[in-house]
Amino acid sequence: MRRGCLMVISAPSGAGKTTLIRQLLRLEKNLIFSVSHTTRSPRPGEVEGKDYYFVSREEFESLVAAGAFLEWAEVHGNLYGTSMEKIREHLDSGRDVVLDIDVQGARQVRKKMGLEAALIFILPPSWSELERRLRSRGTEDEASLRRRLDAARQEIQAASEFDYLVLNDRFDRALSALRSILTAERLRSFRHSDLLRQWLT
Amino acid sequence: MRRGCLMVISAPSGAGKTTLIRQLLRLEKNLIFSVSHTTRSPRPGEVEGKDYYFVSREEFESLVAAGAFLEWAEVHGNLYGTSMEKIREHLDSGRDVVLDIDVQGARQVRKKMGLEAALIFILPPSWSELERRLRSRGTEDEASLRRRLDAARQEIQAASEFDYLVLNDRFDRALSALRSILTAERLRSFRHSDLLRQWLT
Repeated sequence: MRRGCLMVISAPSGAGKTTLIRQLLRLEKNLIFSVSHTTRSPRPGEVEGKDYYFVSREEFESLVAAGAFLEWAEVHGNLYGTSMEKIREHLDSGRDVVLDIDVQGARQVRKKMGLEAALIFILPPSWSELERRLRSRGTEDEASLRRRLDAARQEIQAASEFDYLVLNDRFDRALSALRSILTAERLRSFRHSDLLRQWLT
Repeated sequence: MRRGCLMVISAPSGAGKTTLIRQLLRLEKNLIFSVSHTTRSPRPGEVEGKDYYFVSREEFESLVAAGAFLEWAEVHGNLYGTSMEKIREHLDSGRDVVLDIDVQGARQVRKKMGLEAALIFILPPSWSELERRLRSRGTEDEASLRRRLDAARQEIQAASEFDYLVLNDRFDRALSALRSILTAERLRSFRHSDLLRQWLT
């Protein structure tokens, strides 16, 4: 059986990543979302075990000490991490997994998983559109908007470390690009050594 | 402007490669077929400059000596080669190029072009189906059938050196796999360093 693919998707906040991932999961039945651990408080509507595993900082730190995370990072003062064990289980059973993490996390995944993970960076249509989207969320004061734009610039500086770059200027095209990447990644020859062995015996 | 992608497609004879490439070229308007040089005689219906550039062995060898080929190989006693200059022109002008070459040629392309080329290997549905297809061509005597099956085994042994493996058990699915690979390859971040530079200035 084919091992699953690990898709790692990062983007500056406001690039449209969350909506893209949600729609991708709806269309790709073999793809599942990796639920992260976090120390941040649940937002209204967020469900334990579906959106996140909500844990205390003490619990999180003991998981870090036990080497339980494929990647973890501190973002805006909160800790986020991906359980290595759960990812391995999914991939071994042939399920493809999508990880919604930041640039720091993507780097850790590349280090631990090599090319088994496909790293995808999503670009917003333009700086002005990114600013417009962040403003239109309405929750942003001017200082936090500046912080997010600065963070976006730093993240985009790391985009060349990713395998793929998807410009989200038209939603349907960006979605279809993600589906093509998943299809292509499933066809990578290193994922099919079993098939080749069968052919040659 | 984005540089073009070079798709290298190899397969054992009988895997359905030629039909797949023809259909791919019909659907992908930015993709062009690289016309090879060859020393073999034209078959009925083959057109100079469209199917091949037909040259003498002397002409071919002087092109080899001049380093004019991205790759070249001897197959069944005939020489085949791909002009480096033409490929460069196409890629520089943003056209994607598909190369229909054998395993030896694919190795030379990997050596000279690195990851700029995407190497795709097409597998027939099964050994029995491959044999059936070779027989049904009607042009095969038993000895040349054996030779082709032996050659197929050797080529499949090299398949793990390719980036992608496409099983041609259902034509439409294999065709759509090739299109997804092309789409994904166009999105590779190393092809978009200009775009990233623009973002960061």
